[in-house]
Amino acid sequence: MEHESKNKVDGMEMEKGKKESGSRKGLELTMRVLALVLTMVAATVLGVAKQTKVVPIKLIPTLPPLNVSTTAKASYLSAFVYNISANAIACGYTAISIVIVMISKGKRSKSLLMAVLIGDLMMVALLFSSTGAAGAIGLMGRHGNKHVMWKKVCGVFGKFCNQAAVSVAITLIASVVFMLLVVLDALKLP
Amino acid sequence: MEHESKNKVDGMEMEKGKKESGSRKGLELTMRVLALVLTMVAATVLGVAKQTKVVPIKLIPTLPPLNVSTTAKASYLSAFVYNISANAIACGYTAISIVIVMISKGKRSKSLLMAVLIGDLMMVALLFSSTGAAGAIGLMGRHGNKHVMWKKVCGVFGKFCNQAAVSVAITLIASVVFMLLVVLDALKLP
Repeated sequence: MEHESKNKVDGMEMEKGKKESGSRKGLELTMRVLALVLTMVAATVLGVAKQTKVVPIKLIPTLPPLNVSTTAKASYLSAFVYNISANAIACGYTAISIVIVMISKGKRSKSLLMAVLIGDLMMVALLFSSTGAAGAIGLMGRHGNKHVMWKKVCGVFGKFCNQAAVSVAITLIASVVFMLLVVLDALKLP
Repeated sequence: MEHESKNKVDGMEMEKGKKESGSRKGLELTMRVLALVLTMVAATVLGVAKQTKVVPIKLIPTLPPLNVSTTAKASYLSAFVYNISANAIACGYTAISIVIVMISKGKRSKSLLMAVLIGDLMMVALLFSSTGAAGAIGLMGRHGNKHVMWKKVCGVFGKFCNQAAVSVAITLIASVVFMLLVVLDALKLP
């Protein structure tokens, strides 16, 4: 009798274990798909951001200003190029990691789990540094700085600046998703 | 006879386990002290960075330039203030984590290990974002950007820019040390 109830308990525990690892895997896949979409959108929004405006420029003080058509686009600022590249790399990495999760079907060795954790950790580093870079340049564009005499530009290129801000915000969310993935990876380690 | 040799093997394995966790703890403490020193130095180097120069400024084109004494210091640029604050926070956190490691003497519960892992992970995020921000502004100061008409400033304030670059480089090293700590924390999880 005692032997039977023990088996039952083990069975239930096994069942519970399976359910738990199943739900955790579902959560992981959802977060990876979310990270994939976020990084793709962040890269695209900044990549296509472009605005052309006619700006009056005074070349000779005594003469009337000259109307010059100027364009703002991400490729003109290396911090924005960095943000687009970081998101593109993270997006590619996430696609690969989703394939790994699907193929491994829950039977992942400790070294594979560690490798995925380290990969996710590197995406945290990459995306937070690109968020910092693009965020700092974006803020400089919005406010300027009188000490270094850099004038703000978002007064003229408002739409472009807003698109850049949206991209930086989405990159920040993606960075946090990768942080959560690192914690989830750590919890899965045997 | 067999019983005795089995005990011996268990004893040796226990011994080996103890040595391993001892050496790992030594490694962890060394890395935490390194992170403490790096973040302290990075914050100090940028915090004390200051340079004053006499700069000829043309106010009226027809009149000779006016010699104006101008100063460059970290508090004039929010990305640098962010880098100093991030290093100060990471330095404080590392001091607390060293105390936790010393007090716990190797008997840390899974939740404490997880809390330390999450703490180290947040330092990775904080320091990489401040490295990105200060790095982007530092590069802008060194090269300027003709598209947004921001002139480079490091031609005048070379010493200040070099100190800022040193601080950003040290912050990057500290960020990598925290990444290694996250991996070490994950390996320790039971």
